[in-house]
Amino acid sequence: MSGFTKIIEKDLGKLETSIDRLISTRVDYIKEIVSYIIGSGGKRVRPVLVMLCSKLCGYRGQKHISYAAIIEFIHTATLLHDDVVDNAKTRRGLSTVNTVWGNEPSVLVGDFLYSRSFELMSREGNNEILKTISQVTTALSEGEILEIVKTADVETTEEDYYEIIGNKTAVLFGAACEIGAILGKCQNNRRKALKNFGYNLGIAFQLMDDVLDYTSYNDVLGKHVGTDLKEGKVTLPLIYVLRTARDKEKAYLEKIITQERITQRDFDRVRSIIEKNGGISYTMQATENSLGKAKKYLDTFPPSRYKSALLELADYMLKREM
Amino acid sequence: MSGFTKIIEKDLGKLETSIDRLISTRVDYIKEIVSYIIGSGGKRVRPVLVMLCSKLCGYRGQKHISYAAIIEFIHTATLLHDDVVDNAKTRRGLSTVNTVWGNEPSVLVGDFLYSRSFELMSREGNNEILKTISQVTTALSEGEILEIVKTADVETTEEDYYEIIGNKTAVLFGAACEIGAILGKCQNNRRKALKNFGYNLGIAFQLMDDVLDYTSYNDVLGKHVGTDLKEGKVTLPLIYVLRTARDKEKAYLEKIITQERITQRDFDRVRSIIEKNGGISYTMQATENSLGKAKKYLDTFPPSRYKSALLELADYMLKREM
Repeated sequence: MSGFTKIIEKDLGKLETSIDRLISTRVDYIKEIVSYIIGSGGKRVRPVLVMLCSKLCGYRGQKHISYAAIIEFIHTATLLHDDVVDNAKTRRGLSTVNTVWGNEPSVLVGDFLYSRSFELMSREGNNEILKTISQVTTALSEGEILEIVKTADVETTEEDYYEIIGNKTAVLFGAACEIGAILGKCQNNRRKALKNFGYNLGIAFQLMDDVLDYTSYNDVLGKHVGTDLKEGKVTLPLIYVLRTARDKEKAYLEKIITQERITQRDFDRVRSIIEKNGGISYTMQATENSLGKAKKYLDTFPPSRYKSALLELADYMLKREM
Repeated sequence: MSGFTKIIEKDLGKLETSIDRLISTRVDYIKEIVSYIIGSGGKRVRPVLVMLCSKLCGYRGQKHISYAAIIEFIHTATLLHDDVVDNAKTRRGLSTVNTVWGNEPSVLVGDFLYSRSFELMSREGNNEILKTISQVTTALSEGEILEIVKTADVETTEEDYYEIIGNKTAVLFGAACEIGAILGKCQNNRRKALKNFGYNLGIAFQLMDDVLDYTSYNDVLGKHVGTDLKEGKVTLPLIYVLRTARDKEKAYLEKIITQERITQRDFDRVRSIIEKNGGISYTMQATENSLGKAKKYLDTFPPSRYKSALLELADYMLKREM
């Protein structure tokens, strides 16, 4: 990713070996699919958080590697199930598992990764971490279901939106940081601070994702992305503009959101309405606010290279382009 | 179900209240779907096993109710995901969740139930049980994936078949019994015996299921069921006959198994080939053997009404008609 991964470079190397080892199964088909998706170049943001936070809290053992792998497994399981739910065709520039192998393995390998994660955690025997993670995976599924309930709902409020992204994305970032704190045997107030740091970072991450879905280009086709609009996901750029646009534009947006199929031309017009009415800059501002909040939670920690790395990671959120 | 549930009638009443309480969520949509599927008249075989085995081992507390509910949640999660994988239309005479609400909620509510189960278990804090269950859910997904790999594979051996049903069905029966043993603080040899009792009972349960898929009638249409054949599942009645039938019949069976669509006429012919060549009686015999094996594992326990109930439950497996 960037400079902030330098100080945990060795651990990140161990992570990859650990991932391979921990997913071992006698079913080759599972190995093949897991290698495909986990090896497809994810940014390992969540494992990095586990590692940096555990070091920040003075952890000197090796368990942070396994937990970093587990967090990545859980994240990967959600991706596998999401792609079935969204009927997605590509992810990270590669065909999705459901496109290559079908929905069945995508669902079941996701289940395998969830179960293996809990198996590994129960083997590690840290009940605090297990509690944290199991609450989070419940929240993840609730967030995803809330998102379905709100599909193509033009009445979706900002509050609904934050509830959805809080559950579907931010809680896992929060848990990654909290695990670090638990491993490092942090005081309770610092553990909470790190959890909140992660949560707000996750909110910012998702806000940027939702901005990029309107502003980023598809590498292959050179078109803007627009996946959210196609899937009826009413994200903050759209929510803001539905509230602020002129009646005529609003009526047009509402028509498009509830429409079965959306053409590239529809998307381009929606995008220009959003940009013109400040939906992108409003969401960018929300991202910055969330990052500011996140960084503030680190005030309780004295300066250290791990703290600097976490602050740098936060700043990186605004710069990422995909 | 039968007489053997009489002695735990009160606990079974508590189970239903417990199920309602433990799935509480602020997302109404989840409640609606979970109530639909859990309320649709499952036989609660696995919870009954948790209860009877815990009592057999002298357990006098109340935790067996929560664990019985958790086992039912996990079972229900597998049903929700199975129905997506198999593209099933009906279950227990009702439309499946994926038919009524779509694949998305079916996948995600399944995830919710898995996660909530682990959340509840980590709250209970019994790490032995957590380890047991997490190993089992991993095996469940492996079994399901193995089954997919072997879809429409006319070379499927009896060994493959037992590996599949062992993982996809029997391990959960084994775990239900083992939880009872853990709660009752049974000696290690008795804990193993109960696990093996459950495992072999589960094998018998699945064997009967696979027999009934050829011999039972669909209530509405009055036709034989035939779901497995349609889904390309090569089960024991078919495996046996593929090995023993005359070449011409074998060639016909192989053609049908690998065929994309199967008509009622195809199914009727396959069924009559299987019956004629002893595929049903062979599988019934295997069921009886497995039940005999299961019951033998109870020898280590002195007579008691709980032991009698478990033996009665085993005998019930052969009698069930759906």
